[in-house]
Amino acid sequence: MTATVHRLDNRPPPSLDAMVALVAPGMNQVNAVILDRMQSQIPLIPELAGHLIAGGGKRMRPMLTLASAALLGYTGTRQHGLAAAVEFIHTATLLHDDVVDGSDLRRGRRTANTIWGNPATVLVGDFLFSRAFELMVEDGSLKVLRILSHASAVIAEGEVNQLTAQRRIETTEERYLDIIGAKTAALFAAACRIAAVVAERPDGEEQALDAYGRNLGIAFQLVDDAIDYVSDAGTMGKDAGDDFRDGKVTLPVILAQARGGETDKAFWKEAMEGRRSSDDDLAHAVHLIRETRAIDDTLARARHYGQRAIDALGGFGNSQAKAAMVEAVQFAIARAY
Amino acid sequence: MTATVHRLDNRPPPSLDAMVALVAPGMNQVNAVILDRMQSQIPLIPELAGHLIAGGGKRMRPMLTLASAALLGYTGTRQHGLAAAVEFIHTATLLHDDVVDGSDLRRGRRTANTIWGNPATVLVGDFLFSRAFELMVEDGSLKVLRILSHASAVIAEGEVNQLTAQRRIETTEERYLDIIGAKTAALFAAACRIAAVVAERPDGEEQALDAYGRNLGIAFQLVDDAIDYVSDAGTMGKDAGDDFRDGKVTLPVILAQARGGETDKAFWKEAMEGRRSSDDDLAHAVHLIRETRAIDDTLARARHYGQRAIDALGGFGNSQAKAAMVEAVQFAIARAY
Repeated sequence: MTATVHRLDNRPPPSLDAMVALVAPGMNQVNAVILDRMQSQIPLIPELAGHLIAGGGKRMRPMLTLASAALLGYTGTRQHGLAAAVEFIHTATLLHDDVVDGSDLRRGRRTANTIWGNPATVLVGDFLFSRAFELMVEDGSLKVLRILSHASAVIAEGEVNQLTAQRRIETTEERYLDIIGAKTAALFAAACRIAAVVAERPDGEEQALDAYGRNLGIAFQLVDDAIDYVSDAGTMGKDAGDDFRDGKVTLPVILAQARGGETDKAFWKEAMEGRRSSDDDLAHAVHLIRETRAIDDTLARARHYGQRAIDALGGFGNSQAKAAMVEAVQFAIARAY
Repeated sequence: MTATVHRLDNRPPPSLDAMVALVAPGMNQVNAVILDRMQSQIPLIPELAGHLIAGGGKRMRPMLTLASAALLGYTGTRQHGLAAAVEFIHTATLLHDDVVDGSDLRRGRRTANTIWGNPATVLVGDFLFSRAFELMVEDGSLKVLRILSHASAVIAEGEVNQLTAQRRIETTEERYLDIIGAKTAALFAAACRIAAVVAERPDGEEQALDAYGRNLGIAFQLVDDAIDYVSDAGTMGKDAGDDFRDGKVTLPVILAQARGGETDKAFWKEAMEGRRSSDDDLAHAVHLIRETRAIDDTLARARHYGQRAIDALGGFGNSQAKAAMVEAVQFAIARAY
């Protein structure tokens, strides 16, 4: 948004720096596993996978696995391979997502599908997904395998749910929450939860980490969906207005159309159905979203889930890891401001 | 092929009937698991998955798991869920294959991608793949998980290898064998091998069943690739000449072009590169393939692998199961005649 934010204190804005510092040594191990296990005798596989993997992602999910392990005081090394598995699952879904959406840009770079085509992108996604399971099998925990295979099925269900809701303005906030809970939050939850499994902690801590990851994931996606309507083209990694043009009925749209008059409702219906997709239409959509305070309330919802994520950590004593995980939530939300 | 086959004995041609009868009670269990586990709250998932799953496939791979279990005298029930997992992996790869190839027909019916589009087809494939792993996790054998997650990675590698070889007439027989060994034979091998794991048999029997499945899978694919050049349009489930038009350099093409003169070599290069794809071009290709006896020798190669499959069973005593597994090999090869 363009409004200037006047900060009342001198603290720097929340960032991922504390988490990055916390997990830096472990992430070197994770990155080594990722690099090693994306190799194949078929050169196209590391070439295509490496384009996305080296493409400047934050590695949010594997960092969460490592931070959660640190929170629990776990001193072993099993989290490295599992964090790599989590990142492979995420990378596989990104590759397939970009095919599904026909996206041209991700993280400011051309997508794999535009460079190597849909067929190779689908198949390399399948390869990474299989590699993720091989990594989990090497770790040897059936409980971890259960958590991540279930999360994978839930993610796929969420993606299909999103596809079926696409271009349907009648999508409710409840269905939208189901979708993002499945397509985004399920893997955040699993990434955190598996740390409690490898650290052999009681069920309550597993559930606390699950709740932290799940609520953070929902907040993260809400903010992403808000950003799609507030960023200027070029300031974000993906094309601004992608959701608008794809007819994805995200919360800003749901709120704006619910609060609009008849003309506005008609506009949103036509827009989501793909009959209003020009730059002027996008500008009008942004105007309506601002006018109805749909972004503010989307971000209020994000803060609600962010607070729940922070509160889920209440049972853990204070530590550098906890502070970093709290700040990660604040960062996820502050991205929109 | 159109040549009349004069049979010297009165035995009926080999069929899958013995195997179907052998595994019929078990397959009822497998089908129940398949039907149950392809369900989802998202209606599109069972709708799309069911279209392919109910679409008249032979269920060759789960039948092999059950037949292998019967061969080993295994009397438990674990093979049912695992055979369903194998079929889910296979179904997921078929869905993705049809997207990759842009296929219109499979098993004589419209493909899922032509009915529901590529996005839904990719995502439902991902769902079934995840469900396969959930089923394996429920079974609880890390060894089975290792075998099938490795097979899945190999399949994806084989598919990418095939994609990179596509339209390249210089593809060698060795590379072609690598491709079909990965994309087809790896799952046949794993489907058989896991029966020895659940039956807790020694490593030698595991390897024997792996070899049986692997060689049968290669023979099966060789025959499939031959059929693509000998069947009349309409007599097979998929479009005849698909491989030709897709520029897939299969063994009949490799042999025909190696044995052809300069003009023929030039024709094959142009054809595989997509510059000769009319019905007349296909007819000419079939003519060249017959003239060079490329089909006969492709089928001779298939018989070689078929014999190896049968010989891999040499260590097992005679039984109904063994007889059915031998006849399945003979059937796989006889399909071309």
